[in-house]
Amino acid sequence: MSTSIRSIKSLVPLLDRVLVQRIKAEAKTASGIFLPESTVKDLNEAKVLAVGPGGLDREGKRVPMGVQAGDRVLIPTFGGSPVKVGEDEYQLFRDSDILAKINE
Amino acid sequence: MSTSIRSIKSLVPLLDRVLVQRIKAEAKTASGIFLPESTVKDLNEAKVLAVGPGGLDREGKRVPMGVQAGDRVLIPTFGGSPVKVGEDEYQLFRDSDILAKINE
Amino acid sequence: MSTSIRSIKSLVPLLDRVLVQRIKAEAKTASGIFLPESTVKDLNEAKVLAVGPGGLDREGKRVPMGVQAGDRVLIPTFGGSPVKVGEDEYQLFRDSDILAKINE
Amino acid sequence: MSTSIRSIKSLVPLLDRVLVQRIKAEAKTASGIFLPESTVKDLNEAKVLAVGPGGLDREGKRVPMGVQAGDRVLIPTFGGSPVKVGEDEYQLFRDSDILAKINE
Amino acid sequence: MSTSIRSIKSLVPLLDRVLVQRIKAEAKTASGIFLPESTVKDLNEAKVLAVGPGGLDREGKRVPMGVQAGDRVLIPTFGGSPVKVGEDEYQLFRDSDILAKINE
Amino acid sequence: MSTSIRSIKSLVPLLDRVLVQRIKAEAKTASGIFLPESTVKDLNEAKVLAVGPGGLDREGKRVPMGVQAGDRVLIPTFGGSPVKVGEDEYQLFRDSDILAKINE
Amino acid sequence: MSTSIRSIKSLVPLLDRVLVQRIKAEAKTASGIFLPESTVKDLNEAKVLAVGPGGLDREGKRVPMGVQAGDRVLIPTFGGSPVKVGEDEYQLFRDSDILAKINE
Repeated sequence: MSTSIRSIKSLVPLLDRVLVQRIKAEAKTASGIFLPESTVKDLNEAKVLAVGPGGLDREGKRVPMGVQAGDRVLIPTFGGSPVKVGEDEYQLFRDSDILAKINE
Repeated sequence: MSTSIRSIKSLVPLLDRVLVQRIKAEAKTASGIFLPESTVKDLNEAKVLAVGPGGLDREGKRVPMGVQAGDRVLIPTFGGSPVKVGEDEYQLFRDSDILAKINE
Repeated sequence: MSTSIRSIKSLVPLLDRVLVQRIKAEAKTASGIFLPESTVKDLNEAKVLAVGPGGLDREGKRVPMGVQAGDRVLIPTFGGSPVKVGEDEYQLFRDSDILAKINE
Repeated sequence: MSTSIRSIKSLVPLLDRVLVQRIKAEAKTASGIFLPESTVKDLNEAKVLAVGPGGLDREGKRVPMGVQAGDRVLIPTFGGSPVKVGEDEYQLFRDSDILAKINE
Repeated sequence: MSTSIRSIKSLVPLLDRVLVQRIKAEAKTASGIFLPESTVKDLNEAKVLAVGPGGLDREGKRVPMGVQAGDRVLIPTFGGSPVKVGEDEYQLFRDSDILAKINE
Repeated sequence: MSTSIRSIKSLVPLLDRVLVQRIKAEAKTASGIFLPESTVKDLNEAKVLAVGPGGLDREGKRVPMGVQAGDRVLIPTFGGSPVKVGEDEYQLFRDSDILAKINE
Repeated sequence: MSTSIRSIKSLVPLLDRVLVQRIKAEAKTASGIFLPESTVKDLNEAKVLAVGPGGLDREGKRVPMGVQAGDRVLIPTFGGSPVKVGEDEYQLFRDSDILAKINE
């Protein structure tokens, strides 16, 4: 999903959407040896950059979001909409797709 | 989806539909060199041209739209109904399909 | 969908159904040259001939129709039930399938 | 769907079901020439013979039927349950499957 | 669906289920000639033997059953759960699957 | 579904789940002759060992269970979750999957 | 589902999610003989490590969870989201997917 967006900060999620950036695995071992790119596995962790105002319930009220900007979260392996800003990749999920917060 | 419509301004979306026009990627590089057509990628950005009055909830009330005419938005890669007016292509989405606004 | 109906005016749509007739593309170019039949594309435009009284919501009230007889509308490429009266073809859609009105 | 029913009048549709008999196309041309059986197309028209009392909404009230016995209606090409009484064929549809009334 | 049930009268349907026994076609012609087993077609008629107390609606109230024990009914060609008691076959349907009553 | 559970009595079904043990067909004929294992058919009868407290309706109230521990019931041929405790096999069904009670 | 999480205690399930760790089968027989890894079957038992606050019903109220941290539970064979922390594997289920508690 290519865009001409200059800064990811311009992206304002709608409804119950959550904009996240996947956390990259360390490309070096605990002892400090750098690993070749291909051996670094994708992690299912992400940083929440922005959240929508919440979906609308049947009475037209906003459903409160479960996560907030700044949260570190566990995301599912599949699903989500990829967004590319320059060379960086981001993802948009629905709030209820986020599995867990990581308080670490 | 061919039409005999003379001006896209004649098209009035119904219910929760959003009429958008996809933003074309710049066909030249930052340094001003023009790129051949085939290397210009489609962007997932669009300009909102018109919106419907909102869908009806179960009590018959209009659900307010999340986007308005003039908004710059992030659209999904798949889905939407194409509309062709003359040589120009447009798309109709449902309001809840629009992923995010772009405030830039 | 063949019928023995003599006049399309006899057809009274039920619930939220909309009876439309697709608008044929001009079979001649702007400069007046007639085109062979096979090069004339089907348009996604239609004229609304009749509408049902509206579907029933869960309290048994009629949901008001979004289009009226006489409206010029944008119809989806797929879906709808074809009806043939004599040599003429018509289509029945549900009100919520109609994409947009064309005010031209 | 074979039955041992002697008269179709014994069949009492339940809930929102509509018992119809498809109208046969005239097996002769306008000028009176009889057509061989195989060239007579099935029509999507039917006569309503009997209707159920209406389905139940979520409060347990009957949803009024859109068609009544005696109505001439447009039926969809697919769907419906065939019923055979002697050599005659009938069909049971749900009320909301009936496309339109034919007032002719 | 084999069972060790001795009498079908022991079977008490739950919720909106209807226990029926299919009516066998007469294995002889009108003129009294007995037909070989293989030419006797299954009928879509059945006798209702027992009905459940009705399903529960969303407020926890019982939805009244449309058929009662003793009714002769038209059943669909597919669906239903077969039950075998000794050599006899029965079927369990949901109340809303029963197409019509036969008052003959 | 293997477990390390020592006694099936330790298993407490959640929500609207029903723990049953399928009734084995008699491995001998009425006249007392024992049948080889392979000719004994599985029955669709089961004994209810334990039931959950009931599912939650939309107001958060428990939906009462249709069957109770001790009931003899008719179970569907497919579905249910198998549970193995030692060499014994059990099954967990949802309350609404149980077809009928057997009062014999 | 790889993560860089250091301790599973940092993982806080959202909504109605349940974090569990599958119980490993004893790798030795009752008489104390150790079994080779490949003959040890996966069990469908798990220990609940943490639970979310509960899903939201349509009025925005939390639906109470059926299981709590510390519970020993029966989990389904399929479904759930795997989470890997270091060398340890965990799973996230929805509360309504948990089949039964094991009180032993």
